[in-house]
Amino acid sequence: MTGAEPYDLARLSINQETVKQWSLPELAAGCAAAGISKVGLWRAPVQEYGVERAARLMRDSGLTVTSLCRGGFFTAVDAGERAAALDDNRAAIDEAATLGTGTLVLVSGGLPAGDRDIAAARERVADALAVLAPYAGERGVRLAIEPLHPMFASDRCVVSTLGQALDIAERFPAEQVGVVVDTYHLWWDDLAPAHIARAGAAGRIACFQVADWITPLPEGALLGRGQLGDGCIDLRGWRRRVEAAGYDGPVEVEIFNPALWARDGADVVAELAERYVRHVS
Amino acid sequence: MTGAEPYDLARLSINQETVKQWSLPELAAGCAAAGISKVGLWRAPVQEYGVERAARLMRDSGLTVTSLCRGGFFTAVDAGERAAALDDNRAAIDEAATLGTGTLVLVSGGLPAGDRDIAAARERVADALAVLAPYAGERGVRLAIEPLHPMFASDRCVVSTLGQALDIAERFPAEQVGVVVDTYHLWWDDLAPAHIARAGAAGRIACFQVADWITPLPEGALLGRGQLGDGCIDLRGWRRRVEAAGYDGPVEVEIFNPALWARDGADVVAELAERYVRHVS
Repeated sequence: MTGAEPYDLARLSINQETVKQWSLPELAAGCAAAGISKVGLWRAPVQEYGVERAARLMRDSGLTVTSLCRGGFFTAVDAGERAAALDDNRAAIDEAATLGTGTLVLVSGGLPAGDRDIAAARERVADALAVLAPYAGERGVRLAIEPLHPMFASDRCVVSTLGQALDIAERFPAEQVGVVVDTYHLWWDDLAPAHIARAGAAGRIACFQVADWITPLPEGALLGRGQLGDGCIDLRGWRRRVEAAGYDGPVEVEIFNPALWARDGADVVAELAERYVRHVS
Repeated sequence: MTGAEPYDLARLSINQETVKQWSLPELAAGCAAAGISKVGLWRAPVQEYGVERAARLMRDSGLTVTSLCRGGFFTAVDAGERAAALDDNRAAIDEAATLGTGTLVLVSGGLPAGDRDIAAARERVADALAVLAPYAGERGVRLAIEPLHPMFASDRCVVSTLGQALDIAERFPAEQVGVVVDTYHLWWDDLAPAHIARAGAAGRIACFQVADWITPLPEGALLGRGQLGDGCIDLRGWRRRVEAAGYDGPVEVEIFNPALWARDGADVVAELAERYVRHVS
Protein backbone atom coordinates (compact mmCIF):
# COMPACT_ATOMS: atom_id res chain seq x y z
CA MET A 1 0.00 0.00 0.00
CA THR A 2 1.44 3.36 -0.96
CA GLY A 3 0.01 6.81 -1.56
CA ALA A 4 -0.01 5.97 -5.24
CA GLU A 5 -2.36 3.04 -4.69
CA PRO A 6 -5.37 4.44 -2.83
CA TYR A 7 -7.39 2.10 -0.70
CA ASP A 8 -10.45 0.68 -2.39
CA LEU A 9 -13.10 1.70 0.10
CA ALA A 10 -16.07 1.44 -2.26
CA ARG A 11 -17.80 -1.27 -0.23
CA LEU A 12 -16.80 -0.04 3.22
CA SER A 13 -19.62 1.26 5.38
CA ILE A 14 -19.05 2.88 8.75
CA ASN A 15 -21.68 2.03 11.30
CA GLN A 16 -22.40 5.16 13.25
CA GLU A 17 -22.01 3.44 16.62
CA THR A 18 -18.35 2.77 15.81
CA VAL A 19 -17.67 6.52 16.02
CA LYS A 20 -20.44 7.56 18.34
CA GLN A 21 -18.36 10.50 19.53
CA TRP A 22 -19.36 12.12 16.22
CA SER A 23 -22.63 14.00 15.62
CA LEU A 24 -24.47 13.18 12.42
CA PRO A 25 -22.98 16.21 10.58
CA GLU A 26 -19.52 15.22 11.83
CA LEU A 27 -20.12 11.67 10.63
CA ALA A 28 -21.22 12.88 7.21
CA ALA A 29 -18.30 15.28 6.82
CA GLY A 30 -15.79 12.85 8.30
CA CYS A 31 -16.76 9.97 6.05
CA ALA A 32 -16.82 12.14 2.95
CA ALA A 33 -13.36 13.48 3.83
CA ALA A 34 -12.04 9.94 4.28
CA GLY A 35 -13.37 8.77 0.93
CA ILE A 36 -16.06 6.62 2.49
CA SER A 37 -19.44 6.64 0.79
CA LYS A 38 -21.55 4.44 3.05
CA VAL A 39 -22.83 4.59 6.60
CA GLY A 40 -25.04 2.53 8.87
CA LEU A 41 -27.21 4.64 11.15
CA TRP A 42 -28.93 4.21 14.52
CA ARG A 43 -32.46 5.28 15.29
CA ALA A 44 -31.91 7.37 18.43
CA PRO A 45 -29.38 9.86 17.00
CA VAL A 46 -31.34 10.03 13.74
CA GLN A 47 -34.58 10.78 15.59
CA GLU A 48 -32.83 13.40 17.67
CA TYR A 49 -31.49 15.11 14.56
CA GLY A 50 -34.74 14.65 12.64
CA VAL A 51 -35.31 11.76 10.24
CA GLU A 52 -36.04 13.84 7.12
CA ARG A 53 -33.19 16.19 7.96
CA ALA A 54 -30.81 13.26 8.46
CA ALA A 55 -31.88 11.77 5.14
CA ARG A 56 -31.16 15.11 3.42
CA LEU A 57 -27.80 15.46 5.18
CA MET A 58 -26.71 12.01 4.03
CA ARG A 59 -27.90 12.65 0.48
CA ASP A 60 -26.24 16.05 0.31
CA SER A 61 -23.00 14.52 1.58
CA GLY A 62 -23.07 11.84 -1.08
CA LEU A 63 -23.56 9.09 1.50
CA THR A 64 -25.61 5.93 1.10
CA VAL A 65 -27.30 4.58 4.21
CA THR A 66 -26.62 0.85 4.21
CA SER A 67 -28.72 -0.09 7.25
CA LEU A 68 -30.71 1.30 10.12
CA CYS A 69 -30.16 -0.19 13.60
CA ARG A 70 -32.41 -1.32 15.03
CA GLY A 71 -35.88 -2.69 15.29
CA GLY A 72 -36.88 -5.82 17.12
CA PHE A 73 -37.38 -6.61 20.82
CA PHE A 74 -40.28 -8.87 20.08
CA THR A 75 -40.15 -11.27 23.02
CA ALA A 76 -42.53 -9.66 25.52
CA VAL A 77 -45.49 -11.79 26.58
CA ASP A 78 -47.70 -8.92 27.75
CA ALA A 79 -50.18 -7.91 25.04
CA GLY A 80 -49.71 -4.19 25.60
CA GLU A 81 -45.94 -4.49 25.39
CA ARG A 82 -46.24 -6.56 22.23
CA ALA A 83 -48.51 -4.00 20.58
CA ALA A 84 -46.12 -1.22 21.55
CA ALA A 85 -43.20 -3.16 20.04
CA LEU A 86 -45.10 -3.62 16.77
CA ASP A 87 -45.91 0.12 16.65
CA ASP A 88 -42.32 1.00 17.34
CA ASN A 89 -41.14 -1.32 14.59
CA ARG A 90 -43.57 0.17 12.10
CA ALA A 91 -42.03 3.55 12.95
CA ALA A 92 -38.56 2.07 12.44
CA ILE A 93 -39.58 0.75 9.03
CA ASP A 94 -40.89 4.19 8.08
CA GLU A 95 -37.63 5.76 9.24
CA ALA A 96 -35.60 3.29 7.19
CA ALA A 97 -37.70 4.10 4.12
CA THR A 98 -37.19 7.83 4.67
CA LEU A 99 -33.44 7.32 5.00
CA GLY A 100 -33.44 5.40 1.75
CA THR A 101 -32.03 2.21 3.20
CA GLY A 102 -33.52 -1.14 2.33
CA THR A 103 -32.30 -2.79 5.52
CA LEU A 104 -33.69 -2.55 9.04
CA VAL A 105 -31.56 -4.59 11.42
CA LEU A 106 -33.55 -6.48 14.06
CA VAL A 107 -32.33 -7.48 17.50
CA SER A 108 -34.92 -9.98 18.62
CA GLY A 109 -35.04 -9.28 22.35
CA GLY A 110 -34.15 -11.40 25.35
CA LEU A 111 -36.15 -13.47 27.80
CA PRO A 112 -38.71 -11.61 29.91
CA ALA A 113 -38.01 -11.72 33.66
CA GLY A 114 -38.80 -15.16 35.05
CA ASP A 115 -39.21 -16.73 31.61
CA ARG A 116 -37.34 -20.00 31.08
CA ASP A 117 -38.74 -20.99 27.68
CA ILE A 118 -36.36 -19.71 25.01
CA ALA A 119 -38.01 -21.76 22.24
CA ALA A 120 -41.35 -20.04 22.89
CA ALA A 121 -39.63 -16.65 22.93
CA ARG A 122 -38.19 -17.37 19.49
CA GLU A 123 -41.69 -18.17 18.26
CA ARG A 124 -42.86 -14.78 19.49
CA VAL A 125 -40.20 -13.25 17.25
CA ALA A 126 -41.67 -15.09 14.28
CA ASP A 127 -45.18 -14.00 15.30
CA ALA A 128 -44.13 -10.35 15.22
CA LEU A 129 -42.49 -10.76 11.84
CA ALA A 130 -45.71 -12.21 10.44
CA VAL A 131 -47.32 -8.87 11.24
CA LEU A 132 -44.45 -6.63 10.17
CA ALA A 133 -42.99 -8.31 7.10
CA PRO A 134 -45.73 -7.22 4.64
CA TYR A 135 -45.66 -3.67 6.05
CA ALA A 136 -41.90 -3.55 5.49
CA GLY A 137 -42.13 -5.08 2.04
CA GLU A 138 -44.66 -2.47 0.91
CA ARG A 139 -42.16 0.24 1.87
CA GLY A 140 -39.17 -1.32 0.18
CA VAL A 141 -37.52 -2.21 3.48
CA ARG A 142 -36.25 -5.65 4.39
CA LEU A 143 -36.24 -6.83 8.00
CA ALA A 144 -32.83 -8.29 8.76
CA ILE A 145 -32.76 -10.73 11.66
CA GLU A 146 -29.41 -10.45 13.40
CA PRO A 147 -28.23 -13.44 15.39
CA LEU A 148 -26.32 -12.12 18.38
CA HIS A 149 -23.61 -14.05 20.19
CA PRO A 150 -25.07 -16.65 22.58
CA MET A 151 -23.73 -14.65 25.52
CA PHE A 152 -26.57 -12.19 24.81
CA ALA A 153 -29.30 -14.85 24.56
CA SER A 154 -31.01 -14.09 27.86
CA ASP A 155 -30.87 -10.31 28.03
CA ARG A 156 -30.81 -9.08 24.45
CA CYS A 157 -31.42 -11.57 21.66
CA VAL A 158 -32.87 -15.08 21.82
CA VAL A 159 -31.69 -15.66 18.23
CA SER A 160 -28.08 -16.79 18.62
CA THR A 161 -27.06 -18.53 15.42
CA LEU A 162 -27.45 -17.98 11.73
CA GLY A 163 -29.30 -21.28 11.57
CA GLN A 164 -31.89 -20.04 14.08
CA ALA A 165 -32.22 -16.75 12.18
CA LEU A 166 -32.78 -18.58 8.90
CA ASP A 167 -35.30 -20.96 10.46
CA ILE A 168 -37.39 -17.87 11.18
CA ALA A 169 -36.58 -15.83 8.07
CA GLU A 170 -37.43 -18.64 5.69
CA ARG A 171 -41.08 -18.53 6.74
CA PHE A 172 -41.32 -15.20 4.87
CA PRO A 173 -40.53 -13.95 1.37
CA ALA A 174 -36.81 -13.25 0.90
CA GLU A 175 -37.48 -9.67 -0.15
CA GLN A 176 -39.25 -9.03 3.17
CA VAL A 177 -37.08 -10.85 5.70
CA GLY A 178 -33.34 -11.48 5.54
CA VAL A 179 -30.48 -12.07 7.95
CA VAL A 180 -27.40 -10.26 9.16
CA VAL A 181 -24.02 -11.97 9.07
CA ASP A 182 -21.82 -10.36 11.74
CA THR A 183 -18.41 -11.89 12.28
CA TYR A 184 -18.34 -10.91 15.95
CA HIS A 185 -21.43 -12.95 16.74
CA LEU A 186 -20.83 -15.97 14.53
CA TRP A 187 -17.08 -16.58 14.30
CA TRP A 188 -17.07 -19.54 16.71
CA ASP A 189 -19.85 -21.47 14.92
CA ASP A 190 -18.66 -24.33 12.74
CA LEU A 191 -22.13 -24.53 11.18
CA ALA A 192 -22.16 -20.88 10.10
CA PRO A 193 -20.43 -21.48 6.73
CA ALA A 194 -23.17 -23.89 5.68
CA HIS A 195 -25.80 -21.43 6.86
CA ILE A 196 -24.14 -18.62 4.89
CA ALA A 197 -24.35 -20.75 1.77
CA ARG A 198 -28.00 -21.48 2.56
CA ALA A 199 -28.75 -17.79 3.15
CA GLY A 200 -26.87 -16.69 0.06
CA ALA A 201 -28.57 -19.20 -2.21
CA ALA A 202 -31.92 -17.74 -1.19
CA GLY A 203 -30.72 -14.15 -1.47
CA ARG A 204 -31.28 -13.56 2.24
CA ILE A 205 -27.98 -11.98 3.29
CA ALA A 206 -29.24 -8.46 3.95
CA CYS A 207 -26.20 -7.13 5.74
CA PHE A 208 -22.60 -8.13 6.39
CA GLN A 209 -20.99 -6.60 9.47
CA VAL A 210 -17.47 -6.99 10.76
CA ALA A 211 -15.81 -6.58 14.14
CA ASP A 212 -13.04 -8.59 15.75
CA TRP A 213 -13.24 -10.80 18.86
CA ILE A 214 -10.96 -9.83 21.74
CA THR A 215 -10.71 -10.85 25.38
CA PRO A 216 -11.11 -10.36 28.27
CA LEU A 217 -14.75 -9.44 27.92
CA PRO A 218 -15.72 -6.35 29.88
CA GLU A 219 -18.46 -6.43 32.52
CA GLY A 220 -21.80 -6.87 30.74
CA ALA A 221 -19.95 -8.07 27.61
CA LEU A 222 -21.56 -5.49 25.32
CA LEU A 223 -18.71 -3.08 24.75
CA GLY A 224 -15.88 -5.53 24.20
CA ARG A 225 -15.65 -5.63 20.41
CA GLY A 226 -12.23 -5.39 18.85
CA GLN A 227 -10.83 -3.19 16.10
CA LEU A 228 -10.35 -5.14 12.86
CA GLY A 229 -7.15 -7.16 13.12
CA ASP A 230 -6.83 -6.91 16.90
CA GLY A 231 -8.53 -10.25 17.54
CA CYS A 232 -8.77 -13.85 16.47
CA ILE A 233 -11.34 -13.76 13.65
CA ASP A 234 -10.28 -14.59 10.12
CA LEU A 235 -12.16 -11.57 8.77
CA ARG A 236 -10.98 -11.98 5.20
CA GLY A 237 -12.11 -15.59 5.23
CA TRP A 238 -15.58 -14.50 6.35
CA ARG A 239 -15.79 -11.86 3.62
CA ARG A 240 -14.82 -14.46 1.04
CA ARG A 241 -17.43 -16.82 2.45
CA VAL A 242 -20.33 -14.35 2.09
CA GLU A 243 -19.09 -13.42 -1.38
CA ALA A 244 -18.91 -17.06 -2.41
CA ALA A 245 -22.56 -17.26 -1.33
CA GLY A 246 -23.40 -14.44 -3.71
CA TYR A 247 -23.27 -11.39 -1.46
CA ASP A 248 -21.66 -8.35 -3.04
CA GLY A 249 -23.10 -5.60 -0.82
CA PRO A 250 -21.53 -3.29 1.75
CA VAL A 251 -19.07 -4.38 4.41
CA GLU A 252 -20.26 -2.54 7.48
CA VAL A 253 -17.86 -2.01 10.36
CA GLU A 254 -19.69 -2.02 13.67
CA ILE A 255 -17.47 -1.91 16.74
CA PHE A 256 -18.73 -0.98 20.20
CA ASN A 257 -15.61 -0.05 22.08
CA PRO A 258 -15.13 2.84 24.52
CA ALA A 259 -11.43 3.02 23.61
CA LEU A 260 -12.40 3.98 20.05
CA TRP A 261 -15.03 6.42 21.29
CA ALA A 262 -12.42 8.22 23.42
CA ARG A 263 -10.30 9.04 20.38
CA ASP A 264 -10.59 11.61 17.61
CA GLY A 265 -13.21 10.34 15.17
CA ALA A 266 -11.13 11.08 12.08
CA ASP A 267 -8.22 9.10 13.51
CA VAL A 268 -10.50 6.17 14.21
CA VAL A 269 -11.94 6.21 10.69
CA ALA A 270 -8.48 6.47 9.12
CA GLU A 271 -7.31 3.52 11.18
CA LEU A 272 -10.47 1.60 10.29
CA ALA A 273 -9.95 2.16 6.58
CA GLU A 274 -6.38 0.92 6.83
CA ARG A 275 -7.39 -2.10 8.89
CA TYR A 276 -10.24 -2.85 6.50
CA VAL A 277 -7.86 -3.02 3.57
CA ARG A 278 -5.28 -5.04 5.51
CA HIS A 279 -7.62 -7.56 7.13
CA VAL A 280 -10.89 -7.67 5.21
CA SER A 281 -10.94 -6.47 1.60
CA MET B 1 -41.15 -30.51 51.46
CA THR B 2 -41.13 -31.06 55.23
CA GLY B 3 -38.71 -32.58 57.68
CA ALA B 4 -40.69 -35.78 57.37
CA GLU B 5 -39.98 -36.00 53.63
CA PRO B 6 -36.22 -35.82 53.30
CA TYR B 7 -34.80 -34.62 50.03
CA ASP B 8 -33.71 -37.35 47.67
CA LEU B 9 -30.12 -36.36 47.14
CA ALA B 10 -28.88 -39.74 45.92
CA ARG B 11 -27.83 -38.44 42.51
CA LEU B 12 -26.61 -35.01 43.61
CA SER B 13 -22.88 -34.42 43.31
CA ILE B 14 -21.22 -31.27 44.62
CA ASN B 15 -18.41 -30.06 42.42
CA GLN B 16 -15.64 -28.90 44.71
CA GLU B 17 -15.27 -25.57 42.91
CA THR B 18 -18.81 -24.63 43.96
CA VAL B 19 -17.63 -24.48 47.59
CA LYS B 20 -13.97 -23.69 47.07
CA GLN B 21 -13.85 -21.99 50.46
CA TRP B 22 -13.76 -25.52 51.87
CA SER B 23 -10.61 -27.63 52.25
CA LEU B 24 -10.87 -31.25 51.10
CA PRO B 25 -11.52 -32.50 54.67
CA GLU B 26 -14.17 -29.80 55.11
CA LEU B 27 -15.75 -30.83 51.82
CA ALA B 28 -15.80 -34.49 52.86
CA ALA B 29 -17.25 -33.78 56.30
CA GLY B 30 -19.67 -31.14 55.01
CA CYS B 31 -21.10 -33.34 52.27
CA ALA B 32 -21.42 -36.33 54.58
CA ALA B 33 -23.22 -34.15 57.14
CA ALA B 34 -25.60 -32.87 54.46
CA GLY B 35 -26.49 -36.35 53.28
CA ILE B 36 -24.62 -35.94 49.99
CA SER B 37 -22.66 -38.94 48.79
CA LYS B 38 -20.96 -37.63 45.64
CA VAL B 39 -18.38 -35.00 44.81
CA GLY B 40 -16.56 -33.73 41.73
CA LEU B 41 -12.94 -32.82 42.44
CA TRP B 42 -10.33 -30.52 40.91
CA ARG B 43 -6.75 -31.42 40.27
CA ALA B 44 -4.94 -28.56 42.01
CA PRO B 45 -6.46 -28.96 45.50
CA VAL B 46 -6.22 -32.75 45.19
CA GLN B 47 -2.53 -32.57 44.26
CA GLU B 48 -1.88 -30.17 47.11
CA TYR B 49 -3.53 -32.52 49.60
CA GLY B 50 -1.98 -35.61 48.01
CA VAL B 51 -3.78 -37.78 45.49
CA GLU B 52 -3.64 -41.06 47.42
CA ARG B 53 -4.53 -39.27 50.61
CA ALA B 54 -7.48 -37.53 48.95
CA ALA B 55 -8.70 -40.86 47.55
CA ARG B 56 -8.55 -42.37 51.06
CA LEU B 57 -10.32 -39.38 52.60
CA MET B 58 -13.18 -39.64 50.12
CA ARG B 59 -13.45 -43.39 50.61
CA ASP B 60 -13.37 -43.12 54.39
CA SER B 61 -16.07 -40.44 54.24
CA GLY B 62 -18.32 -42.63 52.11
CA LEU B 63 -18.03 -40.28 49.14
CA THR B 64 -17.92 -41.25 45.48
CA VAL B 65 -15.84 -39.09 43.17
CA THR B 66 -18.01 -38.46 40.11
CA SER B 67 -15.46 -36.57 38.02
CA LEU B 68 -12.05 -34.99 38.06
CA CYS B 69 -11.65 -31.51 36.56
CA ARG B 70 -9.75 -31.09 34.41
CA GLY B 71 -7.47 -32.22 31.67
CA GLY B 72 -7.26 -30.75 28.22
CA PHE B 73 -5.62 -27.58 26.86
CA PHE B 74 -4.61 -29.33 23.68
CA THR B 75 -4.50 -26.42 21.23
CA ALA B 76 -0.86 -25.36 21.35
CA VAL B 77 1.03 -25.51 18.06
CA ASP B 78 4.52 -25.67 19.55
CA ALA B 79 5.79 -29.26 19.73
CA GLY B 80 7.25 -28.86 23.20
CA GLU B 81 4.05 -27.40 24.55
CA ARG B 82 2.04 -30.18 22.95
CA ALA B 83 4.25 -32.87 24.49
CA ALA B 84 3.96 -31.18 27.88
CA ALA B 85 0.16 -31.12 27.55
CA LEU B 86 0.09 -34.81 26.74
CA ASP B 87 2.29 -35.61 29.76
CA ASP B 88 0.11 -33.50 31.99
CA ASN B 89 -3.01 -35.26 30.75
CA ARG B 90 -1.48 -38.68 31.35
CA ALA B 91 -0.87 -37.54 34.92
CA ALA B 92 -4.49 -36.36 35.14
CA ILE B 93 -5.69 -39.75 33.93
CA ASP B 94 -3.57 -41.46 36.58
CA GLU B 95 -4.98 -39.15 39.23
CA ALA B 96 -8.54 -39.88 38.13
CA ALA B 97 -7.84 -43.62 38.33
CA THR B 98 -6.37 -43.24 41.81
CA LEU B 99 -9.45 -41.27 42.93
CA GLY B 100 -11.66 -44.03 41.57
CA THR B 101 -13.55 -41.84 39.16
CA GLY B 102 -14.18 -42.97 35.62
CA THR B 103 -14.52 -39.43 34.28
CA LEU B 104 -11.80 -36.91 33.48
CA VAL B 105 -13.38 -33.65 32.26
CA LEU B 106 -11.49 -32.01 29.41
CA VAL B 107 -11.43 -28.30 28.61
CA SER B 108 -9.98 -28.21 25.14
CA GLY B 109 -8.00 -24.97 25.28
CA GLY B 110 -8.35 -21.70 23.38
CA LEU B 111 -6.60 -20.21 20.38
CA PRO B 112 -2.87 -19.59 20.71
CA ALA B 113 -1.89 -15.91 20.46
CA GLY B 114 -2.16 -14.70 16.87
CA ASP B 115 -3.96 -17.84 15.70
CA ARG B 116 -7.11 -17.23 13.63
CA ASP B 117 -7.87 -20.81 12.56
CA ILE B 118 -10.34 -22.28 15.04
CA ALA B 119 -11.09 -25.29 12.83
CA ALA B 120 -7.42 -26.31 12.87
CA ALA B 121 -7.31 -25.81 16.64
CA ARG B 122 -10.23 -28.22 17.01
CA GLU B 123 -8.31 -30.77 14.95
CA ARG B 124 -5.39 -30.47 17.36
CA VAL B 125 -7.79 -31.45 20.14
CA ALA B 126 -8.68 -34.59 18.20
CA ASP B 127 -4.98 -35.29 17.57
CA ALA B 128 -4.27 -35.22 21.29
CA LEU B 129 -7.19 -37.51 22.03
CA ALA B 130 -5.85 -40.03 19.54
CA VAL B 131 -2.77 -40.30 21.75
CA LEU B 132 -4.53 -40.21 25.11
CA ALA B 133 -7.74 -42.19 24.60
CA PRO B 134 -6.13 -45.68 24.70
CA TYR B 135 -4.05 -44.67 27.74
CA ALA B 136 -7.23 -43.57 29.51
CA GLY B 137 -9.17 -46.64 28.46
CA GLU B 138 -6.49 -48.96 29.86
CA ARG B 139 -6.90 -47.26 33.25
CA GLY B 140 -10.69 -47.32 33.32
CA VAL B 141 -10.98 -43.59 32.82
CA ARG B 142 -13.11 -41.91 30.17
CA LEU B 143 -12.08 -38.58 28.67
CA ALA B 144 -15.10 -36.29 28.73
CA ILE B 145 -14.99 -33.45 26.22
CA GLU B 146 -16.78 -30.45 27.70
CA PRO B 147 -18.17 -27.91 25.27
CA LEU B 148 -17.84 -24.49 26.90
CA HIS B 149 -20.09 -21.54 26.11
CA PRO B 150 -19.02 -19.80 22.87
CA MET B 151 -17.96 -16.75 24.89
CA PHE B 152 -14.94 -18.83 25.96
CA ALA B 153 -14.04 -20.02 22.45
CA SER B 154 -10.94 -17.87 22.02
CA ASP B 155 -9.34 -17.99 25.44
CA ARG B 156 -10.39 -21.28 27.00
CA CYS B 157 -12.15 -23.82 24.84
CA VAL B 158 -12.47 -24.01 21.06
CA VAL B 159 -15.17 -26.66 21.46
CA SER B 160 -18.37 -24.65 21.94
CA THR B 161 -21.31 -26.94 21.19
CA LEU B 162 -22.32 -30.47 21.98
CA GLY B 163 -22.34 -31.12 18.24
CA GLN B 164 -18.69 -30.10 17.96
CA ALA B 165 -17.80 -32.23 20.99
CA LEU B 166 -19.54 -35.26 19.51
CA ASP B 167 -17.92 -34.75 16.12
CA ILE B 168 -14.60 -35.26 17.90
CA ALA B 169 -15.69 -37.87 20.46
CA GLU B 170 -17.24 -40.15 17.86
CA ARG B 171 -13.85 -40.79 16.30
CA PHE B 172 -13.00 -42.87 19.38
CA PRO B 173 -14.58 -45.77 21.26
CA ALA B 174 -17.43 -44.64 23.53
CA GLU B 175 -15.79 -46.19 26.58
CA GLN B 176 -12.69 -44.04 26.01
CA VAL B 177 -14.14 -40.66 24.99
CA GLY B 178 -17.45 -39.12 26.04
CA VAL B 179 -18.96 -35.67 26.43
CA VAL B 180 -20.09 -33.40 29.23
CA VAL B 181 -23.56 -31.87 29.13
CA ASP B 182 -23.48 -28.66 31.20
CA THR B 183 -26.63 -26.57 31.22
CA TYR B 184 -24.71 -23.32 31.68
CA HIS B 185 -22.79 -23.78 28.45
CA LEU B 186 -25.53 -25.25 26.25
CA TRP B 187 -28.86 -23.78 27.35
CA TRP B 188 -29.13 -21.35 24.39
CA ASP B 189 -28.51 -24.00 21.68
CA ASP B 190 -31.63 -25.20 19.88
CA LEU B 191 -29.61 -28.08 18.43
CA ALA B 192 -28.46 -29.39 21.81
CA PRO B 193 -31.53 -31.60 22.42
CA ALA B 194 -30.85 -33.54 19.21
CA HIS B 195 -27.18 -33.82 20.16
CA ILE B 196 -28.13 -35.10 23.62
CA ALA B 197 -30.21 -37.82 21.99
CA ARG B 198 -27.28 -38.64 19.70
CA ALA B 199 -24.85 -38.73 22.63
CA GLY B 200 -27.18 -40.80 24.77
CA ALA B 201 -27.87 -43.36 22.07
CA ALA B 202 -24.14 -44.01 21.84
CA GLY B 203 -23.67 -44.05 25.60
CA ARG B 204 -21.39 -41.02 25.46
CA ILE B 205 -22.87 -38.78 28.15
CA ALA B 206 -20.08 -39.04 30.68
CA CYS B 207 -21.15 -36.23 32.96
CA PHE B 208 -24.18 -33.98 33.52
CA GLN B 209 -23.48 -30.66 35.19
CA VAL B 210 -25.90 -27.94 36.19
CA ALA B 211 -25.60 -24.23 36.87
CA ASP B 212 -27.99 -21.41 36.04
CA TRP B 213 -27.47 -18.52 33.61
CA ILE B 214 -27.63 -15.03 35.09
CA THR B 215 -26.71 -11.57 33.85
CA PRO B 216 -24.98 -9.20 33.78
CA LEU B 217 -21.84 -11.17 33.09
CA PRO B 218 -18.87 -10.08 35.22
CA GLU B 219 -15.61 -8.91 33.66
CA GLY B 220 -13.92 -11.91 32.08
CA ALA B 221 -17.23 -13.82 32.15
CA LEU B 222 -15.81 -16.79 34.06
CA LEU B 223 -17.26 -16.28 37.51
CA GLY B 224 -20.81 -15.34 36.58
CA ARG B 225 -22.65 -18.63 37.03
CA GLY B 226 -25.92 -18.57 38.89
CA GLN B 227 -27.25 -20.61 41.79
CA LEU B 228 -29.86 -23.14 40.64
CA GLY B 229 -33.16 -21.34 40.14
CA ASP B 230 -31.70 -17.84 40.06
CA GLY B 231 -31.52 -17.70 36.25
CA CYS B 232 -33.36 -18.47 33.06
CA ILE B 233 -32.47 -22.12 32.40
CA ASP B 234 -35.19 -24.76 32.51
CA LEU B 235 -32.95 -27.03 34.59
CA ARG B 236 -35.58 -29.70 35.17
CA GLY B 237 -36.23 -29.84 31.42
CA TRP B 238 -32.53 -30.44 30.80
CA ARG B 239 -32.38 -33.21 33.40
CA ARG B 240 -35.36 -34.90 31.80
CA ARG B 241 -33.73 -34.56 28.40
CA VAL B 242 -30.51 -36.33 29.42
CA GLU B 243 -32.55 -38.99 31.19
CA ALA B 244 -34.72 -39.53 28.12
CA ALA B 245 -31.44 -40.11 26.28
CA GLY B 246 -30.57 -42.86 28.73
CA TYR B 247 -28.39 -41.04 31.25
CA ASP B 248 -29.01 -42.02 34.87
CA GLY B 249 -25.74 -40.90 36.44
CA PRO B 250 -24.90 -38.11 38.86
CA VAL B 251 -26.19 -34.56 38.60
CA GLU B 252 -23.14 -32.48 39.39
CA VAL B 253 -23.60 -28.90 40.54
CA GLU B 254 -20.74 -26.73 39.35
CA ILE B 255 -21.15 -23.02 40.03
CA PHE B 256 -18.27 -20.56 39.91
CA ASN B 257 -19.54 -17.58 41.86
CA PRO B 258 -17.64 -15.44 44.36
CA ALA B 259 -20.87 -14.66 46.20
CA LEU B 260 -21.20 -18.36 47.07
CA TRP B 261 -17.52 -18.60 48.01
CA ALA B 262 -17.91 -15.72 50.46
CA ARG B 263 -20.54 -17.60 52.46
CA ASP B 264 -20.37 -20.42 54.97
CA GLY B 265 -19.88 -23.64 53.01
CA ALA B 266 -22.51 -25.58 54.95
CA ASP B 267 -25.08 -22.86 54.24
CA VAL B 268 -24.24 -22.97 50.55
CA VAL B 269 -24.58 -26.75 50.39
CA ALA B 270 -27.89 -26.69 52.29
CA GLU B 271 -29.23 -24.07 49.89
CA LEU B 272 -27.93 -26.07 46.93
CA ALA B 273 -29.68 -29.22 48.11
CA GLU B 274 -32.95 -27.34 48.49
CA ARG B 275 -32.58 -25.68 45.08
CA TYR B 276 -31.66 -28.99 43.50
CA VAL B 277 -34.87 -30.57 44.71
CA ARG B 278 -36.98 -27.55 43.76
CA HIS B 279 -35.50 -26.88 40.31
CA VAL B 280 -33.75 -30.02 39.06
CA SER B 281 -34.73 -33.37 40.55
